[in-house]
Amino acid sequence: MNYTLTQIPDRAEKPRQSGITMVMDKGLSLREVEDFLSVSADHTDIVKLGWATSFVTPRLKEKLAIYREAGIPVYFGGTLFEAFVVRKQFDEYRKLLDRYEMKYAEVSDGSIDMNQDDKCEYIRKLAMQVTVLSEVGSKDEAKIIPPYKWIQLMKAELEAGAWKVIGEAREGGTVGLFRSSGEVRQGLVEEILTQVPFEKILWEAPQKEQQVWFVKLLGANVNLGNIAPHEVIPLETIRLGLRGDTFSHFLDKM
Amino acid sequence: MNYTLTQIPDRAEKPRQSGITMVMDKGLSLREVEDFLSVSADHTDIVKLGWATSFVTPRLKEKLAIYREAGIPVYFGGTLFEAFVVRKQFDEYRKLLDRYEMKYAEVSDGSIDMNQDDKCEYIRKLAMQVTVLSEVGSKDEAKIIPPYKWIQLMKAELEAGAWKVIGEAREGGTVGLFRSSGEVRQGLVEEILTQVPFEKILWEAPQKEQQVWFVKLLGANVNLGNIAPHEVIPLETIRLGLRGDTFSHFLDKM
Amino acid sequence: MNYTLTQIPDRAEKPRQSGITMVMDKGLSLREVEDFLSVSADHTDIVKLGWATSFVTPRLKEKLAIYREAGIPVYFGGTLFEAFVVRKQFDEYRKLLDRYEMKYAEVSDGSIDMNQDDKCEYIRKLAMQVTVLSEVGSKDEAKIIPPYKWIQLMKAELEAGAWKVIGEAREGGTVGLFRSSGEVRQGLVEEILTQVPFEKILWEAPQKEQQVWFVKLLGANVNLGNIAPHEVIPLETIRLGLRGDTFSHFLDKM
Repeated sequence: MNYTLTQIPDRAEKPRQSGITMVMDKGLSLREVEDFLSVSADHTDIVKLGWATSFVTPRLKEKLAIYREAGIPVYFGGTLFEAFVVRKQFDEYRKLLDRYEMKYAEVSDGSIDMNQDDKCEYIRKLAMQVTVLSEVGSKDEAKIIPPYKWIQLMKAELEAGAWKVIGEAREGGTVGLFRSSGEVRQGLVEEILTQVPFEKILWEAPQKEQQVWFVKLLGANVNLGNIAPHEVIPLETIRLGLRGDTFSHFLDKM
Repeated sequence: MNYTLTQIPDRAEKPRQSGITMVMDKGLSLREVEDFLSVSADHTDIVKLGWATSFVTPRLKEKLAIYREAGIPVYFGGTLFEAFVVRKQFDEYRKLLDRYEMKYAEVSDGSIDMNQDDKCEYIRKLAMQVTVLSEVGSKDEAKIIPPYKWIQLMKAELEAGAWKVIGEAREGGTVGLFRSSGEVRQGLVEEILTQVPFEKILWEAPQKEQQVWFVKLLGANVNLGNIAPHEVIPLETIRLGLRGDTFSHFLDKM
Repeated sequence: MNYTLTQIPDRAEKPRQSGITMVMDKGLSLREVEDFLSVSADHTDIVKLGWATSFVTPRLKEKLAIYREAGIPVYFGGTLFEAFVVRKQFDEYRKLLDRYEMKYAEVSDGSIDMNQDDKCEYIRKLAMQVTVLSEVGSKDEAKIIPPYKWIQLMKAELEAGAWKVIGEAREGGTVGLFRSSGEVRQGLVEEILTQVPFEKILWEAPQKEQQVWFVKLLGANVNLGNIAPHEVIPLETIRLGLRGDTFSHFLDKM
């Protein structure tokens, strides 16, 4: 920190189980990755190469090497897993993870129909190879999953070996946890939290208002994802009560 | 490509007549151009220096040289053409194109009133000097051009020598082809396509939902423009059915 | 300028009292600052390190040195001033300004309650140390300040020693001067201008439509702030009547 302020909430130290910031890289150049890390490496826990952007991104190995050098794990977006599964190329996906020395992978069913047993089986298989994040929620805004089902899915996927479960929101923040307006489905989130430990959940929250909402509900050390590279510093100030939106939130409690 | 997936739609090879991605540069620095090209050169067909941003952009010659080196043609936005015409400086505009060794130019009437004969005359004159893109549609959201008129204008401008006709949308995607909400004027697009070959049209579609709509209607090799530099990789995945929005679209048909 | 066009409005020369563009840096890397300045230094008068982003931005001294080298003054966002004041650390804030050799500072009360006398006292104290910008308007969209009060506050703060008064809008442009939709509170702006000289006011106007509105009302040399780094070139074209939105505005008058 560049100067001292009192009454700043404690942040967990990296590597951490809560307070995680997951960033979405949807096609940064090598130099843009360096720029991003030069500012935000300390505040970034893990990076997702958004959906299947890795298919068309040149110099992928070099990009992964830059993140590895900075100590930031990277994983392919769940849509890539689904693209292999729907084509019956799952074994090739496992080889791909090895070929790129990936230590993390996502299992999701946002764009395909997959029954729960099959999904948990994929989680179990991949968990023998890498650390698995599994995602709950559809990318289709017409598919509303009721709260009890979210809870049941999250519990089953954690039991199958997922390290964290991700609450779906897309890059835009308009499905899954959120209404098409971007507004949080508050009742859903609160009900999930009665049954699933908060440090096991990573909430996709690309919009500022969503990040503010989660920090106010769950504190500085909530796990948040799908953060744009240039929004990591702003998010860190929201976590610390140093932006207008959360300015008074922590002061009141200290 | 970094790995192999089955059932990926074929993309035309560069240089191509359809499947074109036109990118808008509204003031990138030289290093940002290099970064952009290091990731997206293979997926970018042509770059527009947005409206008259070239007037205030420093080191313009150096920027053009970087694009030329990468084999990507560049042209000045149509608003610059209009700025010269409205000031009765058209001859200077032609000299300007020579001075910067431009191989492409846009003829438009988005901000000025110009009758069709005059516009076609400008196209004819410029087509002797460069490859011409001509744009149909007003930047004024109050000016609604009926479909039969769009068709008549497009045909006349192609006959006058335009290489492609552009459907206007602005940087934001809220006029011309689109309603102020950004929604596509679907009936307009479909009617145009009954009369004008789809490879002759370049649709401005800066918003993701607009890109998805055109790819679903016209396939991977639709011509799309006003794409922001950081959205070229995401657009390419939409074209290939590798983003949630078009994930099932091509699978169903293969 | 890269070429000559007639009927371009005159822009005041730097350093200038009107026609100021204030840019918000909310966490640029050192190389991104260089990129930004390589394109936009000539069109940028002053840079704000947004709210308290400086708390978590690494290599702050090096960043400030790059701006200094380019002759662009920098100041900490008003929220940082408030963060020190609310913690009763104002003396430390003054030392901080010295330690980082800041020549400008902002006094605001967007996130805290402060009576007018206290605010003016802070302005007086800081004005002995640096050039002060003071901001009027709340970040809380529920707090509507009536026009007569805006005028009274602005006059008092200028008398207390503020160089300029800033009309609040936040990064998003949805409070203070603007409705939550982003629409300008036109009556408010017009009433303020009957009482406060236009060159003494810096209007926060992050959205394009807001910039256009102010340029149409007050001309090329209105003071505008909270401009994103990549929007400086587009804004300059709006000021010069070289973008569709203001294309005819200056022509009609010359």
